[in-house]
Amino acid sequence: MQPSDLNERIVARGQALFAAIADEKPALFSSATWTGRVLQWSLQNEEFKTSLFRFVDVFPVLHGSQQLTEHIRQYFGADEQLPPVLATGARLAGKLGPLGGALLAKAITVNLHELARQFILGESTEELAQRLKVLHREGFAAVIDVLGEATLSHAESGEYLATYLRLLEVLAAEERRWQALPGLAGAPAINLAVKPTALYCLANPMDFAGSVAGILAPLRRIAERAVAAGAFLCIDMESYRTKEITLEVYRRLKREFRDYPHIGIALQSYLRDSEDDLAELLAWSAREQLPISIRLVKGAYWDFETVRARQMGWECPVRSSKSDTDAAFERMAAAILRQHRFCYFACASHNIRSIAAVLETARSLRVPDDRYEFQMLYGMAEPVRRGILAATGRVRLYCPYGALVPGMGYLVRRLLENTANESFLRQTFAGAAEIEKLLEDPEAVLSRLRAQERDAVPGDAASANAPAFRNEAAADFTRPEVRAAFPAALAAVRGRAGETAPLFIAGRDVLTATTVPSRNPNRPAEILGHVCQAGTDEVERAMAAAGAAFPAWRATPAMARAAILRRAATLARQRLYELAAWQVLEIGKQWDQAHADVSEAIDFLDYYAAEMLRLGVPQRLGELPGEENFLIYEGRGVAAVIAPWNFPLAIACGMVAAALVTGNTVVFKPSGLTGLTGRRLVELFAAAGLPDGVLNFVPGAGSAIGDQLSAHPDIALIAFTGSLEVGQRIVERAAVVCPGQRQFKRVIAEMGGKNAIIVDADADLDEAVPQVLASAFGFQGQKCSACSRVIVLEAIHERFVERLVAAARAWRLGPAEDPAFDMGAVAEAAAQRRIRDFIEVGKEEGELLYASPLPEGEGYWVPLTIFAGIRPEHRLAREEIFGPLLAVMRAADFDQAIAWANAPSFALTGGLFSRSPANIARAGNEFRVGNLYINRAITGAMVGRQPFGGCALSGLGTKAGGSDYLLHFMDPRIVTENTLRRGFAPAAKGAGQT
Amino acid sequence: MQPSDLNERIVARGQALFAAIADEKPALFSSATWTGRVLQWSLQNEEFKTSLFRFVDVFPVLHGSQQLTEHIRQYFGADEQLPPVLATGARLAGKLGPLGGALLAKAITVNLHELARQFILGESTEELAQRLKVLHREGFAAVIDVLGEATLSHAESGEYLATYLRLLEVLAAEERRWQALPGLAGAPAINLAVKPTALYCLANPMDFAGSVAGILAPLRRIAERAVAAGAFLCIDMESYRTKEITLEVYRRLKREFRDYPHIGIALQSYLRDSEDDLAELLAWSAREQLPISIRLVKGAYWDFETVRARQMGWECPVRSSKSDTDAAFERMAAAILRQHRFCYFACASHNIRSIAAVLETARSLRVPDDRYEFQMLYGMAEPVRRGILAATGRVRLYCPYGALVPGMGYLVRRLLENTANESFLRQTFAGAAEIEKLLEDPEAVLSRLRAQERDAVPGDAASANAPAFRNEAAADFTRPEVRAAFPAALAAVRGRAGETAPLFIAGRDVLTATTVPSRNPNRPAEILGHVCQAGTDEVERAMAAAGAAFPAWRATPAMARAAILRRAATLARQRLYELAAWQVLEIGKQWDQAHADVSEAIDFLDYYAAEMLRLGVPQRLGELPGEENFLIYEGRGVAAVIAPWNFPLAIACGMVAAALVTGNTVVFKPSGLTGLTGRRLVELFAAAGLPDGVLNFVPGAGSAIGDQLSAHPDIALIAFTGSLEVGQRIVERAAVVCPGQRQFKRVIAEMGGKNAIIVDADADLDEAVPQVLASAFGFQGQKCSACSRVIVLEAIHERFVERLVAAARAWRLGPAEDPAFDMGAVAEAAAQRRIRDFIEVGKEEGELLYASPLPEGEGYWVPLTIFAGIRPEHRLAREEIFGPLLAVMRAADFDQAIAWANAPSFALTGGLFSRSPANIARAGNEFRVGNLYINRAITGAMVGRQPFGGCALSGLGTKAGGSDYLLHFMDPRIVTENTLRRGFAPAAKGAGQT
Repeated sequence: MQPSDLNERIVARGQALFAAIADEKPALFSSATWTGRVLQWSLQNEEFKTSLFRFVDVFPVLHGSQQLTEHIRQYFGADEQLPPVLATGARLAGKLGPLGGALLAKAITVNLHELARQFILGESTEELAQRLKVLHREGFAAVIDVLGEATLSHAESGEYLATYLRLLEVLAAEERRWQALPGLAGAPAINLAVKPTALYCLANPMDFAGSVAGILAPLRRIAERAVAAGAFLCIDMESYRTKEITLEVYRRLKREFRDYPHIGIALQSYLRDSEDDLAELLAWSAREQLPISIRLVKGAYWDFETVRARQMGWECPVRSSKSDTDAAFERMAAAILRQHRFCYFACASHNIRSIAAVLETARSLRVPDDRYEFQMLYGMAEPVRRGILAATGRVRLYCPYGALVPGMGYLVRRLLENTANESFLRQTFAGAAEIEKLLEDPEAVLSRLRAQERDAVPGDAASANAPAFRNEAAADFTRPEVRAAFPAALAAVRGRAGETAPLFIAGRDVLTATTVPSRNPNRPAEILGHVCQAGTDEVERAMAAAGAAFPAWRATPAMARAAILRRAATLARQRLYELAAWQVLEIGKQWDQAHADVSEAIDFLDYYAAEMLRLGVPQRLGELPGEENFLIYEGRGVAAVIAPWNFPLAIACGMVAAALVTGNTVVFKPSGLTGLTGRRLVELFAAAGLPDGVLNFVPGAGSAIGDQLSAHPDIALIAFTGSLEVGQRIVERAAVVCPGQRQFKRVIAEMGGKNAIIVDADADLDEAVPQVLASAFGFQGQKCSACSRVIVLEAIHERFVERLVAAARAWRLGPAEDPAFDMGAVAEAAAQRRIRDFIEVGKEEGELLYASPLPEGEGYWVPLTIFAGIRPEHRLAREEIFGPLLAVMRAADFDQAIAWANAPSFALTGGLFSRSPANIARAGNEFRVGNLYINRAITGAMVGRQPFGGCALSGLGTKAGGSDYLLHFMDPRIVTENTLRRGFAPAAKGAGQT
Repeated sequence: MQPSDLNERIVARGQALFAAIADEKPALFSSATWTGRVLQWSLQNEEFKTSLFRFVDVFPVLHGSQQLTEHIRQYFGADEQLPPVLATGARLAGKLGPLGGALLAKAITVNLHELARQFILGESTEELAQRLKVLHREGFAAVIDVLGEATLSHAESGEYLATYLRLLEVLAAEERRWQALPGLAGAPAINLAVKPTALYCLANPMDFAGSVAGILAPLRRIAERAVAAGAFLCIDMESYRTKEITLEVYRRLKREFRDYPHIGIALQSYLRDSEDDLAELLAWSAREQLPISIRLVKGAYWDFETVRARQMGWECPVRSSKSDTDAAFERMAAAILRQHRFCYFACASHNIRSIAAVLETARSLRVPDDRYEFQMLYGMAEPVRRGILAATGRVRLYCPYGALVPGMGYLVRRLLENTANESFLRQTFAGAAEIEKLLEDPEAVLSRLRAQERDAVPGDAASANAPAFRNEAAADFTRPEVRAAFPAALAAVRGRAGETAPLFIAGRDVLTATTVPSRNPNRPAEILGHVCQAGTDEVERAMAAAGAAFPAWRATPAMARAAILRRAATLARQRLYELAAWQVLEIGKQWDQAHADVSEAIDFLDYYAAEMLRLGVPQRLGELPGEENFLIYEGRGVAAVIAPWNFPLAIACGMVAAALVTGNTVVFKPSGLTGLTGRRLVELFAAAGLPDGVLNFVPGAGSAIGDQLSAHPDIALIAFTGSLEVGQRIVERAAVVCPGQRQFKRVIAEMGGKNAIIVDADADLDEAVPQVLASAFGFQGQKCSACSRVIVLEAIHERFVERLVAAARAWRLGPAEDPAFDMGAVAEAAAQRRIRDFIEVGKEEGELLYASPLPEGEGYWVPLTIFAGIRPEHRLAREEIFGPLLAVMRAADFDQAIAWANAPSFALTGGLFSRSPANIARAGNEFRVGNLYINRAITGAMVGRQPFGGCALSGLGTKAGGSDYLLHFMDPRIVTENTLRRGFAPAAKGAGQT
């Protein structure tokens, strides 16, 4: 809370500023303009707002009147349904007739260009210079920001760099003609803002050191030129993900250019971390005697940060309310102003309360005027900028420069900022808020909010008692302890190298004479351990143990079985990095992929435990008096779980956990490549308290054990994940009722995929390119969900392929344990041979667009490979390859794209990048795969949210991690009791009544 | 409403009667007695009341202290948990120590005998005579009612008859010693009540004429003796089911004994029909100049009638409130009193208001005292009976006579009557109701109740909008129009005899050269029609048609598909009797069985339609911002439906409807024995508006078509119901992926059973015997759910077998179309041979207890056959016979019974008759069948309430008519959309959000 006398002065100052701007309205909120009217409509209509923002987003890529008209119809409805406000301009312009659509499109195009031009200073250096001159004449300084955040390749990063270098040249020449602005006489006339991630397309917190170095190199070149030109250089703060990297880059750059004071950094007061970051920065600056400069902003990615954190399961990095952010802004501003001797301050806000607070705080601290300035976004809050300029004489406008296309993202963000409920500008200029409220100390507002929250009636008490399932959090590599955990865990795992992993039967370890070594595919000479191999006899013993344990386990209450899964989840959580490290070494998963695998295993444990508690309650059917019908589900017997190597913990754990929690006992065969990870899973369950014999572990020769189990008369069900060939064999063999068999076997099988992503003509390539790459080449493409075909609409083919290949070139190959590498070796020599054979096939069938260079050393390397020109009849379009090989197919239209996408007899995952509502809806209906993803990667299904599994020949229609899954592991039974005796029927039991 | 002056007199009279009984309490409500205290406790504790009533019910069959103690513990808890009131007597008696249980058992036994003796006048004729003398001395007349309602065999009916004849003899001798009671000088001293259904064990409204004749024969003999002895004979009214039969019996008897005035009938004022019945009876009596006598009661089966009507889907025959019944009582009493010259009136009520109303109404109508009397139940309401005796001098007590065992049912009914919330006696003697209220005109109470109902807020508005599924009503053969409908429908169907039923492919009838005749199994020479036979080509054409129709049908909205099912249901409802008649003739179903089959078909249509509306809505998963995940289900392709002959409409309709409503197209092969019924199903769907090609009909050779379909690459799923052998072949063949096949086939198969009913040592044989018979021999045992083994506990084996065989002897064999017969011919000659072979096997393995005689004529007859001495290793205990052959197995204890029950590898249905809560709970857990039924027949699963299907080798764990069933016909798909674009995520869509 501000001291009350200071606060009084702030309020008074604010009132004076408000008085000065009187009834002026910024263009955006002026009902005299089309933009103003449309924005006003958005404020009243959430659905229209969404459509408008999305349309603005896609607009730059729409070519020709037809495409534009179609999109207008899809977003806003047919002519007669169009919101009047949208049509008005067009009606006035063209008297909507049969040509209505085209005319409307034209009018909207004109208007949108107008709108963009309001926020973007110029599209060429000439235009830029011209506009800067005008601003300068009005008394405004400028900071230039080059649009184009998403650089996907070194080429694109390079272009971004080149633009800055060129800009510096142009501006340096231009500058000479400007007179210094009186209020900003001490500051450089040239001022540039730069987005660090745009300079390096691979920036990624997992590879912290590499990212810092990757950004520093081009940034250094800009800094050198800036120094030469005497320009100011500000490093922008982007999303939370790269905050630490940016801070480190800034410190490194400052050290390199110790003597140059005009290098600054932006901080965002909406981040919970920022006050600490600021304190550290100020202390560091004082300690190092380095003069710094800070631009303080509120932060522009609130929606994004919130959504991302919630989806990832992370603590939300941004403050939850506007007043909290505003209060932090005032505190941080004061902290900076107190250090004004070391730190120059740029106050970047349109909020009159914040500005008044800075002014009055500075005055109370006696900060010289030349130690701080005000910055505002070009195109917004014109009355405020004029008012502050009049009051202070030093206002710098943040001016985006660049083409309309990359600028639309910027435009949407600005519109969002202006139309958000809590926006100061919206409240000031579009709302009816009283000035008194707008000028209230944000700390006071916050206290009131918090008191209200405390007093609020707590939510649904029932749901509080039974906490809903939540996914385990993803690895947050922004945290140094997470980055440090991996090398430590890898070292620990290596410390155990050479172990002999025994079988586990009837609760006891069983050693066998035969063992096979488990190798690191990135360094095949490295043997991680030896895995005992089960023969026919051991499998038979495991079957007997599982059979003997079954009756007692089935009779164990569902709640007790679920509790064991939950304990296993807790143990896995405690050993998360170790379990991930095993996978890094044993099968070559990258850090994040291995972490995700363990998290998914934990999810399966928690989710199936919760599900079983739901299904374990007898369900009453019917409500007639005199009878009670209860539906109960119970385990079937001994389950064989035959697991793959590509998700060696998660998938095995999911199948085992589902079988166990439903009351079945299990004979578990891991993949031959990941016996050690499989053994870890068994240890988890044993430590969680699973009774002897309930889970048995029989690594060994796949085909022999698979055949033995699938034809065993005592097997009740088989859960299998693996290849179509093996799955098909299991399905066929399990269908035969053998002598002595007492039940039909149930098979739960997930098999292959030949997954396609369709890239529509209006796709956002900034999203499509990296997501296609991640889907196709993550973990070397060794996922059943991986993308192996990308079907690109003719209209966008060239641009997509160009950016795709350029982006692919940036991927570095090397051992998975080193986060500097994006792709590692494939699982084994046989896979290496198979994939290389397919590359030869591809060379005959299509055009090799790219094959990455291979690292030195003895790993099972295959290149990251992209072919173009693949057609549906080609083997590359039909056969599962299971490696880093992507086939690009060029489709004439969306019909053909859908037909091609559905052509293989696999139907596992699929994707679509499109901004056409009609095509998105159509894909939902007609692109028939188990898991379809719109505008995102097609791998990484989350338990509970995206139950996973395919149909056709990809799977049997079970959905792992979904609410129907456990039903496949149980038999349903109905128990009906006639409760009428001697004419007397008691009131019905309530238990489980629905 | 009574005229107000009359009502005033009634109230005044009532007040006088109340004053006369002052503070007297009947023994049942006296806190001085153990009974009184226990009953008081029951009134406060619903659960205890249920346990008490059930314990009283089972008590008579418990032998020995151990069995008794165990039941006490199971019903009331262990010693320390015993309700104090129950233990008190025992504590006082024996200071509960280590021998507590046994002593408690002894005390309770003594108390219960005491309780029973309060209601039952005597167990022997000597005792009876003695007690009657005492009553007579007190001034009470008596009507004697012989206990033992459930007579299951002619032998038991015969015993019942013999008891009456003997009783008449004894009483005639006794009577001579009695002085006439002054108030009842004109009435016969001997007065007997007789329950008509006890005289004829087969009474059944479906066979109305046979039932009337069957009852009349023995009743005539009683009447002859009664006339000879000058005794009064009253025909009791039992449940609504036999009300019409009883009225007809009475009229017939009265006509036969025109000159004898002392034959009466009881009417129940709680029946909605009774006022009309009374009016008719009075009119008939006047018309025929036959003096009659009516005992008017309120009615004692209210719970039973309500439960039964709701379970059967019938309008409830009883009035819904006590005041409604009381008002009807007063109206009916007045009607009778007005006709006092023809009709003698016995007013049977303990309700002082009712009695006062009769007294005052009689006075106002000037009815002579000797034209009406008052009757009350022995053992209840002693103060009332003394009061009325004092006031009128003519009270007759209704005195049950007989052994304790059959008397317990009577006892429970009496306890229920006394403890029901609305009971007049409870309110008078145990409650705090004011006399004013108790004497209020019931019509006035009723008006108030109805006004309250009208004003009540209507229930859940949502559930009113989406009416829940309700089962189609069962055939109500008490209604003459239902009885008349069958002969008419049979004649109509015969009128179509000779039709040639074509195939149906792509919406068109297809005639083939080859046809097979469809015969009436009861008269094989009768050919009902000729069914065209599909060959390989026709099946291929049907496959092509179904394949072509699939995409459009899948794309048809779920709501539209469901609407077609609902239209088909409406059509089936309109043609219900005709569709039933086809089955009576084509496969030999009895009327009720055929009606049930059609009702079940309608249920499947309605239920699956409702289910699809539920599942057709995309289900939102997860609730995180920035993503939308929808789970959708959709049809898989072409479904083969291969149907059995035993439920030729219901099962075929269920499978076809499920396949269709989920969006699959169908190739339907009916059984070769029921091609005409199968054709009717196809006609229903066509008439309901199913598009061409969606349902195709290919009757033909089972094995050839089954093989062709199960191995067809274009088949997506197969729904099969039939034998294990065929099912297993289909499962195996369908598992093989053929060339060109694009998806794994799904098989939904219901196969055989070897179903057992366990008869526990404490079973209620009055229930167990007829339900076992119905389960084993209904429709000649040709149901997969039929009982083929009855496993009887040693302790009860002899008594059970004796009653079972005696009851079986009553079953009459003959053509199904004649409701006089209980069992008809089996389906075909091959079945006849197979079953006869099994009878020969049975003769070697066990002891032939009974083989019924066979009718004349050429039907496929096999005897109703019962073997004893069957052990688990016998073929009769393991192999499915599918005919009217029941194996009785004698088990040493419950453990063995459960083990034997579970022994076969079938696990379809099972049953248990037991009154041991522990054994009932244990069977629920351990008797592992798809459908377990406690204390009822094991056939007749109801859609929605008892989803049907087995596990082990009986089925694949799908449950027809259950909420998981449709899932098997669909593929689940997940559509995930990333809704975050440019950092902006709109509010989530609500559609289908859960």
